[in-house]
Amino acid sequence: MKKLTVLGSTGSIGRTTLAVAANHGGAFRVVGLAAGRNITLLAEQAERFRPEILALEREEDVEALRQAGSYLPPKIVWGAEGAVEVAGDTRSDIVVSAITGINGLRPTLAAVESGARVALANKESLVVGGFLLREASARSGAEIIPVDSEHSAVFQCLAKERPQDVRRVILTASGGPFFRLTPEEMRSKPPEEALNHPRWKMGKKVTIDSATMMNKGLELIEARWLFDLARDQLGVLIHPQSIVHSLVEMRDGSVLAQLSQTDMRIPIQYALTFPERSDSGLPALDLGRIRELEFYDVDFEQFPMVRLALKALEREQAFSVGLNAANELAVEAYLNKQIDFFQIHEVVAESLASQEPSRDVRTLDDIFAVDREARERTRQLLQKRN
Amino acid sequence: MKKLTVLGSTGSIGRTTLAVAANHGGAFRVVGLAAGRNITLLAEQAERFRPEILALEREEDVEALRQAGSYLPPKIVWGAEGAVEVAGDTRSDIVVSAITGINGLRPTLAAVESGARVALANKESLVVGGFLLREASARSGAEIIPVDSEHSAVFQCLAKERPQDVRRVILTASGGPFFRLTPEEMRSKPPEEALNHPRWKMGKKVTIDSATMMNKGLELIEARWLFDLARDQLGVLIHPQSIVHSLVEMRDGSVLAQLSQTDMRIPIQYALTFPERSDSGLPALDLGRIRELEFYDVDFEQFPMVRLALKALEREQAFSVGLNAANELAVEAYLNKQIDFFQIHEVVAESLASQEPSRDVRTLDDIFAVDREARERTRQLLQKRN
Repeated sequence: MKKLTVLGSTGSIGRTTLAVAANHGGAFRVVGLAAGRNITLLAEQAERFRPEILALEREEDVEALRQAGSYLPPKIVWGAEGAVEVAGDTRSDIVVSAITGINGLRPTLAAVESGARVALANKESLVVGGFLLREASARSGAEIIPVDSEHSAVFQCLAKERPQDVRRVILTASGGPFFRLTPEEMRSKPPEEALNHPRWKMGKKVTIDSATMMNKGLELIEARWLFDLARDQLGVLIHPQSIVHSLVEMRDGSVLAQLSQTDMRIPIQYALTFPERSDSGLPALDLGRIRELEFYDVDFEQFPMVRLALKALEREQAFSVGLNAANELAVEAYLNKQIDFFQIHEVVAESLASQEPSRDVRTLDDIFAVDREARERTRQLLQKRN
Repeated sequence: MKKLTVLGSTGSIGRTTLAVAANHGGAFRVVGLAAGRNITLLAEQAERFRPEILALEREEDVEALRQAGSYLPPKIVWGAEGAVEVAGDTRSDIVVSAITGINGLRPTLAAVESGARVALANKESLVVGGFLLREASARSGAEIIPVDSEHSAVFQCLAKERPQDVRRVILTASGGPFFRLTPEEMRSKPPEEALNHPRWKMGKKVTIDSATMMNKGLELIEARWLFDLARDQLGVLIHPQSIVHSLVEMRDGSVLAQLSQTDMRIPIQYALTFPERSDSGLPALDLGRIRELEFYDVDFEQFPMVRLALKALEREQAFSVGLNAANELAVEAYLNKQIDFFQIHEVVAESLASQEPSRDVRTLDDIFAVDREARERTRQLLQKRN
């Protein structure tokens, strides 16, 4: 039986992870859970899975948790340090890292340092601190297995191949809700339409990132760190059906691909059971019914965020940190209707243009310092526009 | 340096194999060649690659070979036994088996018995004698690596998966030149049109087999033996673009696929370099330019030969032997304009219907006996029709 910790247990990935674990009979035992403020759900999860340690965001919610559930684990911790403590608990065999945003970085790093397998769903920790995670996994021997469907696809295709035989990794993107529009038509699309993603049901931030394709941009940076690739080894294709989750081009001209329905249970389960696979109970992919898979090159005029992310891959690490921070605030401003859809890119590009180029990023503290500065700078840019 | 033997060196696969080997600097040394009656080309190949042993079809061509080339290997052999001798030469590390037809069976078996890696392009040896090749490779430890693009795709996808995790193998088929036609429109299509294959340039027999989709039927039987699959683990999809060469459905719902341009250098090279890959010099697959990949279920009314082959998978081995033999003669009769396109199926089905059902096939001799009987029966059926 594998001991499992889930960071971000009340979010979409966290909930699906627990469902997958429960579906595997006695194969997994949940030893740790970390969540935010959804105390009702956390209490239910604790009741059902009986972990040994729980982390929540605020100390004042401990009392609410006591009242909500009849089961209380031996240890309850809270705050940023609480999540790090649960993550770094060396009794766990697998840590699923699914806290969203840059807040996931410290716990993810703690999990990697513990030597556990880390099933990684937190994009930002790789985007801003991929170099730290690589160093830590080299020291601790921790496996990092991606949970994002695209990176899971790449991981599955690469599993059997030698790194030197890989020519290129091509991430697929659905193109989001605005793919068939011109830049002019996209310019003033309101959040209600941007939130209407054709393939995946996700949180608001990542759904907007899908509409701008910044999501794919961040995933390119993720892939760079996960698979140790150079800028010219990374490509993107728009694939509206979201059936081919990514492709790996080998140096002999062969291309390997992983396909499946758009169901996060598949990559989550794979990260838990690798190198084995288990029955997911999902029906077979029926390509004879789907009939058509389309692929398009990305138009950078339509999706300038992808170009920005590719530029980040050629620049110093501070650029990736600033890109992630500026984008987060710009998306928030767009959701609050403070700026137009295309202004997301304008604001982020402007924020990056004024970033101090020589900023060196070597430690966690460096990352958080650059992140704070970028947020402050972006906030000022947004205020100027109002 | 790996020592290489090529059986069927003057055919399309043989020539491409030698070109791939030559393209790998000193990685491969050709030690044996076996060919038929194309003495001019065989002499050129001998001159260039300087093998230690040569096999040709007829003793009387030895003199022609002497006159055609300045290089003569230490050993020249001929006839059916000659090809078997070259194939079984234990000095070779890799034997590429590319003799066409049932004549490839004995040499292929000899190669497998020698313990060499066998890069297998001879369909018939698996269709009629897959059980013998499996037994022999279990004894000798020989790896059998498929060269057919479809089976190479499956092999690449399966390379590191556990057999128990595989749910289904789905071979793709171009659908051939008549895919968009109704059975009525196909009925009387002349050989000139059937030979006009949209994707692959191949020999006449296999091109007609593509038009009837018997080629895919034989490949399903091949896959059964290569990958040790049950009937219900085998599927086919028509994929007119011939870019996805096959798919493997895993039990977790993931589907792995291998894609590439339609160029036999890729699977041939893979069979030679596995588990490594080397640069093929081929340009990247450009899916953004190809744009569309289509998939269709097979209509058994349109392609009844696929149904016959699937039936063979549920029946005793003699059925596969008879199927292969009857098909070969029926295709020949069609090419000679003795029968219509749809009569290929009628003749084969009729020949199988009258085959003695209890015929046991356990040895090479059994295979050849059933093959002879099936040919004789089919010949009589064809004569009756004339």
